[in-house]
Amino acid sequence: MTANIITKVSFIVCFLLVCLQLSSAKWAKPRRLDAVSRSQNRLRDDRCRQFKTIKQNVDHFGFSNMDTYQQRYTLNTDVWENGKPILFYAGNEGDIDLFCDNTGFMWDIAPIFNAMVVFAEHRYYGQSLPYGNQSYSNPEYTRYLTSGQALADYAYLLDYIHSSIKGAELSPVIVFGGSYGGMLAAYFRMKYPHVVVGAHAASAPILQMTTPCEAFSRIVTQDFLQESAQCVDIVRSSWGAINRIGSTASGLQRLGNLFKLCNPLKSVDELKNWLLDMYGNIAMVDYPYPTSFLADLPAFPARVFCSNVTSAILRLRKNDDEDVVRRIIKGTNVFFNYTGQTECFDTGSQGSPSLGDLGWSYQSCTEFVMPMCSDGVNDMFENQPWDFQAFSDACYDQWKVRPRFEWPYIEYGGKNLTDLRFFSNIAFTNGNLDPWSSGGVRTTVAPSLPAIPVIGGAHHLDLRAANKADPPSVLQARQQIVALIEKWIS
Amino acid sequence: MTANIITKVSFIVCFLLVCLQLSSAKWAKPRRLDAVSRSQNRLRDDRCRQFKTIKQNVDHFGFSNMDTYQQRYTLNTDVWENGKPILFYAGNEGDIDLFCDNTGFMWDIAPIFNAMVVFAEHRYYGQSLPYGNQSYSNPEYTRYLTSGQALADYAYLLDYIHSSIKGAELSPVIVFGGSYGGMLAAYFRMKYPHVVVGAHAASAPILQMTTPCEAFSRIVTQDFLQESAQCVDIVRSSWGAINRIGSTASGLQRLGNLFKLCNPLKSVDELKNWLLDMYGNIAMVDYPYPTSFLADLPAFPARVFCSNVTSAILRLRKNDDEDVVRRIIKGTNVFFNYTGQTECFDTGSQGSPSLGDLGWSYQSCTEFVMPMCSDGVNDMFENQPWDFQAFSDACYDQWKVRPRFEWPYIEYGGKNLTDLRFFSNIAFTNGNLDPWSSGGVRTTVAPSLPAIPVIGGAHHLDLRAANKADPPSVLQARQQIVALIEKWIS
Repeated sequence: MTANIITKVSFIVCFLLVCLQLSSAKWAKPRRLDAVSRSQNRLRDDRCRQFKTIKQNVDHFGFSNMDTYQQRYTLNTDVWENGKPILFYAGNEGDIDLFCDNTGFMWDIAPIFNAMVVFAEHRYYGQSLPYGNQSYSNPEYTRYLTSGQALADYAYLLDYIHSSIKGAELSPVIVFGGSYGGMLAAYFRMKYPHVVVGAHAASAPILQMTTPCEAFSRIVTQDFLQESAQCVDIVRSSWGAINRIGSTASGLQRLGNLFKLCNPLKSVDELKNWLLDMYGNIAMVDYPYPTSFLADLPAFPARVFCSNVTSAILRLRKNDDEDVVRRIIKGTNVFFNYTGQTECFDTGSQGSPSLGDLGWSYQSCTEFVMPMCSDGVNDMFENQPWDFQAFSDACYDQWKVRPRFEWPYIEYGGKNLTDLRFFSNIAFTNGNLDPWSSGGVRTTVAPSLPAIPVIGGAHHLDLRAANKADPPSVLQARQQIVALIEKWIS
Repeated sequence: MTANIITKVSFIVCFLLVCLQLSSAKWAKPRRLDAVSRSQNRLRDDRCRQFKTIKQNVDHFGFSNMDTYQQRYTLNTDVWENGKPILFYAGNEGDIDLFCDNTGFMWDIAPIFNAMVVFAEHRYYGQSLPYGNQSYSNPEYTRYLTSGQALADYAYLLDYIHSSIKGAELSPVIVFGGSYGGMLAAYFRMKYPHVVVGAHAASAPILQMTTPCEAFSRIVTQDFLQESAQCVDIVRSSWGAINRIGSTASGLQRLGNLFKLCNPLKSVDELKNWLLDMYGNIAMVDYPYPTSFLADLPAFPARVFCSNVTSAILRLRKNDDEDVVRRIIKGTNVFFNYTGQTECFDTGSQGSPSLGDLGWSYQSCTEFVMPMCSDGVNDMFENQPWDFQAFSDACYDQWKVRPRFEWPYIEYGGKNLTDLRFFSNIAFTNGNLDPWSSGGVRTTVAPSLPAIPVIGGAHHLDLRAANKADPPSVLQARQQIVALIEKWIS
């Protein structure tokens, strides 16, 4: 499984107009979090665009750099009453309006608590750029992109809200977040229990850094396997087919044409990385109702993908490499061209400009090394080991930093699950379809740290607005969260 | 009350051979913590000098600076058994052997728990200097001196101990500390409950930053008042006497001669700062048995000071300014010349080279602004308001940093006492004679956050080795701590 940094980098080229190129390498690389968040979201909520800003210190943890920047956030008091709670979203790696649009659960329950609703943008994403368009230009500007600095931003913002809004002085705060935002929600409660009384950490892979590297790939495979074993076999065989066809220049060109790529393929890795991202993304957004993310998607996209791939067998005559590739193409159309309106595809285009892939690349090169590997036997990918040194070297080449593998569990805990027992009031929700659940807290460690399963749920489904197609488990999970909040604020 | 930064700076001149000079100013400035620790300690314990070192990241909270440094610590396993606890001292602003020598309580109780005993030196103090003798030379080197970086050092050190010492993998850790070290002990448990199961925070003024500025001066005064009201009156009147005598060049010279100062006085402020430090120090080390700190001290030094000051009335004929000054000199001899062997006094010499006044100056100019003031009515000092702006300006002049007054309560809590309710397993001990108890947690906020009073106790008396002159309250406090540790590790 060659993977992400490389595709990420080619995407990055467009994102901040910095042209970088990393050579491909034969080792598995970390996945992006938040495929969901990389949505070209169609459900625009005006309340998510009433932006405010607050002046923040660029460096909370040192005093010699006195630079400040403007952090963006939204604050809604439509249903809020004096002294009532603040529902606070710990923004993750993207524009805050995107998360605000996609976290309907907070809006849904605000009236129950007569709550204020606040969404805070994570530094270095969206328009909260400490050094403007130079923020990623050199290590001296990039160095303040850490989870700890983001949490300190949130603590300052809440102190400001508490002290500046009349009637909010004693309003208890509940923090929410999904994916990396879910990690931040958990960390916020863990590190700042004096600021937030409880956390809803949805699909938060806080244990991913110490989880066996193959876990993610296996869950992705499982999602497809529950639809069709034949489908998984075809995907598994597709890598060899792509390698063989792409082994010549003309074959590479042929692959580009078959996949309708807009630009000539530079290598089979480019194509395979694009596909790998897609499989992970389909698993993450395997929701029970149609959604409009990277493109319009049907309900249960893994099911539709497999249906397309396997039904193609009736129409294709030869079971050779090109047949396999054509089956995969039938499947990819589910994800990339469901409406049939796309003329060609860009292998760097799975991320939307609303999501900060550049920032996440930096964060996965520093604090959040999430090892990824596959064996081609227990999963449907190529055999690709995890190679920390190679990953670290690539990070150094790109960012002039090296990751500290041990940092998250030293700073936040989670080396062993029992480490968490001294924390409190964090609800961990995880969907069994979500590959990131591999790094989630799926065992209740202490009564105040419940692990709430969402059977049939993909990546933080529970944070989305209520939908009539929601499985019973997500309704139960949301009810449980509401009951916990009642308890936390009492 | 003119105060400390200025005298501190003149001390600093000798400490790291950097010559700085700040002009005096008419505003009250923060006190030094840990007069106790500035001891020329006579009780040298060999176990406190078996140093080890560990390589630490200079910047735990960022990744662009990859420098490392060697942190010093001691580790003793004389009575330790596999799996049994680790008693860990969170080093504060000085050489770690000094704290090790003066924290007999940990050594006393180690056999009860068959515990390992570890003392970790705080970065930028002792020999744990991130940039060697250049550590304080410019803001780029100084910027990593923060409590947060120190706590991360401790977390890394404990992770290393847990993973490298066979049998220590599951050893629970109890953290101890006194004064600023007590703050660190509390903060360590608050921020790293996955690393330490409980904390004994002795004389830890974690609320000092939000405590009324006059509180410290009033407790100092109270300590002397309980010995003699006349004594307090004399001290109160001495400032005017010193001002009047010192208002001329010849008077200033006369004062220097009377006080047997080694060097000519530059201003009355220099003398008054020296005396102010002394009163605070006497209050802090007002122990019930003789101790050997800055100089040899009798038991109950405040009592002896007042006895000297008031009994002098019988021998001095004229009750004029010089008489008042001579009485004070009789008192100062208790603190500076108890053995009668000192020929002259250096107004910059209350700190010992073992204590890092330079570092504490930086820390009080960044994270730990502890406002100090006096009114001359409810206390025995001059009327001196607190002036944050003047303090901040002096910090900028000296260090090129400005303090963030709100940082400690945002980062660690304590803006309101109830903020602390979500933390657990921290025992706060405070002696009623200790002026730093003004910023201590003296109210039990939650069952697992007991506030333990030490009646008749000065600055972290409870951390010292058992002594037959110990008051009953300190014996009870220590018993309570032992019982709590039993509970925490069970």
